[in-house]
Amino acid sequence: MSPSSIRLPRGFRASAVHSGIRRNKSRLDLALLVADEPRPLAAVFTRSLLLGAHIPVCRESLAATGGRVRAIVVNAGNANCSTGPRGIEDNRAIARYTASLLECEAEEVLFLSTGVIGAHLPMDRIVAALPGLCDAAAEDAADAFSRAIMTTDLVPKLVTEELDGKDGADGARLVGFAKGSGMIHPDMATMFGFLVTDASLGADPAALMRRVNARSFQRTTVDGDTSPNDTFVLWGSGLAGELRDIEPAVTRVAQELARKIAADGEGATRLVTIRVSGAPTEEAAVVVGRTIGTSPLVKTAIHGRDPNWGRIVAAAARAGVPFDPQRSSLRIGGAEVYRVGVPCPENEVAAHEHMLKEHEVIVELDLAAGSAGAECWTCDYSADYVRINADYRS
Amino acid sequence: MSPSSIRLPRGFRASAVHSGIRRNKSRLDLALLVADEPRPLAAVFTRSLLLGAHIPVCRESLAATGGRVRAIVVNAGNANCSTGPRGIEDNRAIARYTASLLECEAEEVLFLSTGVIGAHLPMDRIVAALPGLCDAAAEDAADAFSRAIMTTDLVPKLVTEELDGKDGADGARLVGFAKGSGMIHPDMATMFGFLVTDASLGADPAALMRRVNARSFQRTTVDGDTSPNDTFVLWGSGLAGELRDIEPAVTRVAQELARKIAADGEGATRLVTIRVSGAPTEEAAVVVGRTIGTSPLVKTAIHGRDPNWGRIVAAAARAGVPFDPQRSSLRIGGAEVYRVGVPCPENEVAAHEHMLKEHEVIVELDLAAGSAGAECWTCDYSADYVRINADYRS
Repeated sequence: MSPSSIRLPRGFRASAVHSGIRRNKSRLDLALLVADEPRPLAAVFTRSLLLGAHIPVCRESLAATGGRVRAIVVNAGNANCSTGPRGIEDNRAIARYTASLLECEAEEVLFLSTGVIGAHLPMDRIVAALPGLCDAAAEDAADAFSRAIMTTDLVPKLVTEELDGKDGADGARLVGFAKGSGMIHPDMATMFGFLVTDASLGADPAALMRRVNARSFQRTTVDGDTSPNDTFVLWGSGLAGELRDIEPAVTRVAQELARKIAADGEGATRLVTIRVSGAPTEEAAVVVGRTIGTSPLVKTAIHGRDPNWGRIVAAAARAGVPFDPQRSSLRIGGAEVYRVGVPCPENEVAAHEHMLKEHEVIVELDLAAGSAGAECWTCDYSADYVRINADYRS
Repeated sequence: MSPSSIRLPRGFRASAVHSGIRRNKSRLDLALLVADEPRPLAAVFTRSLLLGAHIPVCRESLAATGGRVRAIVVNAGNANCSTGPRGIEDNRAIARYTASLLECEAEEVLFLSTGVIGAHLPMDRIVAALPGLCDAAAEDAADAFSRAIMTTDLVPKLVTEELDGKDGADGARLVGFAKGSGMIHPDMATMFGFLVTDASLGADPAALMRRVNARSFQRTTVDGDTSPNDTFVLWGSGLAGELRDIEPAVTRVAQELARKIAADGEGATRLVTIRVSGAPTEEAAVVVGRTIGTSPLVKTAIHGRDPNWGRIVAAAARAGVPFDPQRSSLRIGGAEVYRVGVPCPENEVAAHEHMLKEHEVIVELDLAAGSAGAECWTCDYSADYVRINADYRS
C-alpha cells in the first residue's frame, strides 16, 4: 500500500509541519493526531527515573480526563528532558494553546517530545506553527505524521491492518506509528508508539494496553539503553461496527512496529528474531531472549555473519533463568549449530549462508526446560552504531 | 619495577611454554603456578550456567582437598567449554598427569582453560609440553606466566605489593595476575585472576575471597557479557612472618587488576572510573555504577569525548535504584556538568578537555539519596570493539 493511500481510522485526522525545531527545513518536526471528540486512550510510559517533562504532565492529564483524549501533539528534535520546572510549564503551555485552537480542555491534549536531552523547547517556533498544524489536519496525513516523529530513524514506521466486522458489517482499521532506533530497551516502551483504531478499546483499555505492550515493544531492544521520554499509546474512536476480539490484531500491529524499530536500529544491517522455546514460563523465555538480544558479543557476531552459537548460549546462560546448557539446542536460519549441549560444525556453513543472504536472521534456542516460548527482536551491532553515537549528542 | 625483577612470593614458582595450542609459535600458551607443598586456596567461579569443563572438576578437587592446592596449570587459546563428557575427561587427564610429574595427588592440581568455546583440547601437545613446563618452574617467571594466560588482551596484567611485617619482622609479597578484555561482566569474576602471596590467608580464605571479589572484579565491565570459564583464585603459602590485616592489600591488588582489565577492554581507548556517591547502600552504588559502565550509549559518548551527562543520568535512572534525578549531580573530570537536576553547559568544555587529554576518565555521580558509595570501572566503546568481535570466533 503506498503511503499516500493510507487513511486514518474513522474519527482521526493528522498533520505535520516543519516548525524550526530542526535546522533542516526539509524535515518535519511537529505533528498532530486529533480525534473528532475526546476518545478513550491508554498509555504506558518509560520506567526510567529520569523523565521527560511530558510524562508527569500527560499522567496528570490522563488522570483528570479519565483517559479521554482529543489530541496528541508530538515534536521531534528536542526531548524537553532535564529542563526543570520551566520544561513542565512549557509542556503545559503548548497543551493549553493547542486546546484553545481545537476548542477543548487543556487536559484533553497530550504534548509529547523526543530528541536531544537538556535543551529548552523553542517555544516561539512551536507556538507560531500550531495554528497551521491544527488547520491542516486531514484523514490522509498518516505518512506525514510517521515521518515527523523520526529522530535518528532512517525509515518511518507505519503499520496498518483491516479488521472485518461481524456478519458482513463494516470493519475497522488499525494504524500504528512508531519511532526509535537508539536508546532502545523497553522497560517499558523505549520509543514512541501510537496505535489508533476506529474499533472500541472495550471496557478496560489499560489492561489491553498492558498485555499488548508486554508482547510487542517490551520484546525489542537495540542497545539496552532506556530513554527517559518514551511512550506508547493506544487510542480508539469506537466508530467502527461491532467486531470480534481486537486484541490479536492490535498485538500484531504493535509487534510489527516493534520489529521495525529493531530493524532500523542505529547502524543495523540485520533484523534478528530470537525465538526461545522450552522455557519454564513465557516470562522466562522473554528474559532469555532479551539477554541474547542485548549481548554485544552476540550482536557483533551477527554483524560478522558468524553463527557463533557459543556466544548465544553463553548469553542465555547468564540470563538468570534456570536451564541446562548441556540439554539445550540452537538453530540459526533453521540450521542446527548446537544440539543437546554439543556444537554441530557441519551445519555452520548453512547458518552462515542464512546470515549472509537474509535481512532477517532467525535464532531459535530450545532450553529444554519447559514448554513455554516467546519471540524477541534485536539487530546487529556495527561500527556504524559506534560512529553514530560517538558523534550524536542525544 | 621491571617484569624480570618480579619475584613470586615465597613458596611459589611459575613457568610458561608454547605448547602448540596457539598457532603463533612466539606466543606462550601453557602456564604453571606451583607451590612448595599443598597450600590454602580460595576460588570463585563464573555464575553462568554454561560452564567450561574446568569448573566442575576444580570444584570437586577443591572439595576433596579442603582447598589445599599444589599447582595450577592454565592454557590459553582453548576454553574446553561445550566439549561434553570428553572435555571433563581431558581436564582430569591433564591434572592427573601433572600430579604424577609433581608427585602429588591429582586433586591437588587445578587445570584451567580460556579461549575459544567448542573445540576439544589438543591433548597430545599439552601432554608433550607438561614435563618441560614442570621442570622449568622458577621464582622469577611471574612475567612469563602473565603473558601466557592472555587471549585477546593487548597487555599482560601483573600487580605486586609488598607488606611490612609486624615490629620490623620480614614482610610479605602479593603478586596478582589477570587476563581478560572481552566477555567481561563479572557475575562473578569474568576473567582469570590469580593472586598469590606468602602471607597466610587466615582462618577463612573463602570469606576473605568473597569480600575482595565483591570490591574488585565484580565492579569491572567491558561489554556486559559473562564468560563461561572465568575464575579468580587467592592462594597463600603462609611462609611470611606475622602481619597486620592483609585484606586491604589484597583488595588493592585485586582492584588494580580489575582496573587493568577494563583499561585493556577490547578496542578501548579510555579507562573509565565511575564513582557513585550519595547512594542508599554500597550495593546500590555498585548497581548504578555497573549500569552506567555497561551502557553502550555512555561508552560510545566517552569514545567521542562527549561529556554527555544526559546518557549517564539516563543509565543511572534505569538501574533500579531509587533516587531523584532532579536532586542528583554529575562531574566529569571534576567539572560539574549536571547540578541538582539541571545541566551546566558552561562546564562542558572543561569536561571535554579532560576526556581528550586523560587516559582515565573520571565520572562522579552524586545520587543525593544516601551516604554510601562505590567505584566501578569500564572502558569506552570503539568501532574497533565491533571489528574485533565481528571477526573473532570466541
